[in-house]
Amino acid sequence: GTFERICQAIAPHLKEGAIVTDVGSVKGAWVARMESLMPRHAFFVGGHPIAGREKSGVEAATADLFQGNRCILTPTAQSNPKALKKVAALWEKAGARVSEMDPFDHDQILAAVSHLPHLVAYVLMETLTHPKIAKKNPVQFSAGGLRDFTRIAASSPEMWRDIFLLNREAMVEMVDLYQETLEKVKKKIIDGDGPGLMEIFSRAKSVRQKALS
Amino acid sequence: GTFERICQAIAPHLKEGAIVTDVGSVKGAWVARMESLMPRHAFFVGGHPIAGREKSGVEAATADLFQGNRCILTPTAQSNPKALKKVAALWEKAGARVSEMDPFDHDQILAAVSHLPHLVAYVLMETLTHPKIAKKNPVQFSAGGLRDFTRIAASSPEMWRDIFLLNREAMVEMVDLYQETLEKVKKKIIDGDGPGLMEIFSRAKSVRQKALS
Repeated sequence: GTFERICQAIAPHLKEGAIVTDVGSVKGAWVARMESLMPRHAFFVGGHPIAGREKSGVEAATADLFQGNRCILTPTAQSNPKALKKVAALWEKAGARVSEMDPFDHDQILAAVSHLPHLVAYVLMETLTHPKIAKKNPVQFSAGGLRDFTRIAASSPEMWRDIFLLNREAMVEMVDLYQETLEKVKKKIIDGDGPGLMEIFSRAKSVRQKALS
Repeated sequence: GTFERICQAIAPHLKEGAIVTDVGSVKGAWVARMESLMPRHAFFVGGHPIAGREKSGVEAATADLFQGNRCILTPTAQSNPKALKKVAALWEKAGARVSEMDPFDHDQILAAVSHLPHLVAYVLMETLTHPKIAKKNPVQFSAGGLRDFTRIAASSPEMWRDIFLLNREAMVEMVDLYQETLEKVKKKIIDGDGPGLMEIFSRAKSVRQKALS
């Protein structure tokens, strides 16, 4: 899409040793595609700083956005080690904690901790518009629970459409897992399985602790 | 459960004109049950202040917890109008905006805006513990999206087990709607239906605006 067009447009003008990097949320096959569009004397390094907010655009910029947050670089066998080091140094200067991983691992991990949560929030909002429940106008009675979700659902719709479609494969895999888990938990509610629910809620607490550490 | 035992224990000691109310998250059939446990000269009025936080217990108390938040009272044909007025006045003094509605409507609305969001968050956490994805240790890369969910999943597990099981019928109905919606959105991702996704995300924004107003 856009990245390819930009790469094709700039490729003829790249100087000897030029490094091209990106901040896109989906890597996978795109990294190899970007690499293949570079001239021999220029280097591509895929990057993804994990530091989003619900606001987008230049007006939403803050100087410390990357401070203490993670940035994932996705080198391949084709990557130039010096170029990789330079891009890592750039992100470290901005305060980010840099990790390196395979582009496809990146997509699975981001599907799990970022793309799926956003999808789940959007689906919740959409559920509340279902005529069966919307006629009772429940949203006026929303408290903490729903409001945390609405912040997520306030992110840029265009960006999330693109992310969901670009990362389709990993997304669908995660949604399958989510559906399987939801069905399991629903069954426990139907069966009145209190201990089973407690077990799940306790595990949730341990995930929370990991996420905040 | 607990409420019934307490009602049975206090019933013989209630003075003429005594008013009993509660702050439970589930109403439905329980309100009629509580009413039936009152002696003739005492009055039950169901109440539910919508002002939870992820912390529970006396230590988490704050003086302005109810300020500006909603409180739902659930009178029935049996309710004493004077008792209802007194309970409403009590909550208004605490700063709450009081609404009245049918106990079963209450349960459906709360299932939609509070119980379902919490379930969806717990299911997300549980999904991340699935061996297929947990082996990649994704949670260390969590950003905003997941962290908003972890706050929800930090609420009291005992309380949520009780709410899910007490409000079983409305919950399962809402989970069915959620599953139907999730399947619909997954299909749009599989089909690469960008405009269809944009339509859903736009509706989500309008739900958000209602929830925050």
